Amino acid sequence: MQRVKLEIQYDGTNYCGWQTQPNKKTVQQTVENAVRLALGEECSVFASGRTDAGVHAFCQVAHFDTNTKFNTEKLWAIINRFLPDDVQILNSTAVGADFDARKSAKRKTYEYSFYKSIVDLPLYKNKKAKVRTDFDLKKAKKALPFFVGEHDFSAFCSSGTMVQSKVRTVFDISLIEEENNCFKLSICGNGFLYNMVRIIAGTIIDVGLGKIDCNQISNIICSKNRNLSGKTAPACGLCLKKVEYV
Amino acid sequence: MQRVKLEIQYDGTNYCGWQTQPNKKTVQQTVENAVRLALGEECSVFASGRTDAGVHAFCQVAHFDTNTKFNTEKLWAIINRFLPDDVQILNSTAVGADFDARKSAKRKTYEYSFYKSIVDLPLYKNKKAKVRTDFDLKKAKKALPFFVGEHDFSAFCSSGTMVQSKVRTVFDISLIEEENNCFKLSICGNGFLYNMVRIIAGTIIDVGLGKIDCNQISNIICSKNRNLSGKTAPACGLCLKKVEYV
Repeated sequence: MQRVKLEIQYDGTNYCGWQTQPNKKTVQQTVENAVRLALGEECSVFASGRTDAGVHAFCQVAHFDTNTKFNTEKLWAIINRFLPDDVQILNSTAVGADFDARKSAKRKTYEYSFYKSIVDLPLYKNKKAKVRTDFDLKKAKKALPFFVGEHDFSAFCSSGTMVQSKVRTVFDISLIEEENNCFKLSICGNGFLYNMVRIIAGTIIDVGLGKIDCNQISNIICSKNRNLSGKTAPACGLCLKKVEYV
Repeated sequence: MQRVKLEIQYDGTNYCGWQTQPNKKTVQQTVENAVRLALGEECSVFASGRTDAGVHAFCQVAHFDTNTKFNTEKLWAIINRFLPDDVQILNSTAVGADFDARKSAKRKTYEYSFYKSIVDLPLYKNKKAKVRTDFDLKKAKKALPFFVGEHDFSAFCSSGTMVQSKVRTVFDISLIEEENNCFKLSICGNGFLYNMVRIIAGTIIDVGLGKIDCNQISNIICSKNRNLSGKTAPACGLCLKKVEYV
């Protein structure tokens, strides 16, 4: 039995997220199906974490166990033949049985992309979220430092989340303007709660729109009250950029 | 009668190019149809130039004449209601009857986007072209200066092109690496022949792959022989970025 680590890119637009659900098209089920067709084995494929419906992954990491005789380093190409255009494996490597895509992950980086415009721009459809044209980058950037460090992020987590602890550490957060009124929020942490990145993005956008004062961020974190933070920003702007294990 | 200048963005993936053709879905026909539904008038909409099937426009410029009583500056919003998600008007302004989207254009800028990878990346589908991983940026950049200036670009024009002169001026050309092995070729000129940007892009990519020596570019231009230049790079990587009138 060999454990294999996969790096997977997907356009989440046409998927109900990563995790298998009955009667829904998901990335996990799509990958497991391709593994079955390629290797003739029923394998469960475990990712570093779920992504929501419509969320993308530049490089999701997952693992599975196999008895295949194919060379592990070539599995990506073999499995890709059975995958659709919007889900493709970038890489496959042999790892030890102690490697777990979720539990072994040390750092995850998400990017949230948005643009300001009155018009819904065709070229950003399903890839970037639209914000009002009075969005002010300088104002928004003032909100960033408050998120860095170890905090109880209950106020930035959708209700119904069943986890033991809502304490997470944000290592780094940045917001840059790319060309043509496009912005990219990058956030790196040891893990993220359900909808946490989208609620942080929505809150930072609200600061940039003058709806939330940046000096309120500390209070919002301390309150642990989801009702005080900003809107959950749309899924299409979110992309899991990388997962690091060392 | 008022002449209106439109700025139009489109994702060309699902269109057989700009220009109306019988029994084909084109951007021109889509826009003219929306104008008819919005204003109740049959108007011909003339663009700065055709774009091919699958080619995008960040900002195509077009004009049309109308007797509408709607405020010209608001026409973009009224027409957008009758346009699909992948074609949207960014702006509408009143211009003089001497303005012609094609003839008045002084400079056009195209961008050609590509990435190097073994895998067809889901997140770049229909937006960037894939090149081999041995593509060398430094090598490719050496080809750029040869294209600048006034030249007869017959060698960079698909056969069957019926124009009086194949002399065009390239004002500026640049090639940069963006993140993650993505590259953007930007080319600005007073006009472009049929497939000219895609053949120049294909030639520069071939230089970066070592298939064409950069010192051959001058000879290729002088030869006026299409058979000596590189492949026509795929349509999906091409985007009309801007059209300037002053």
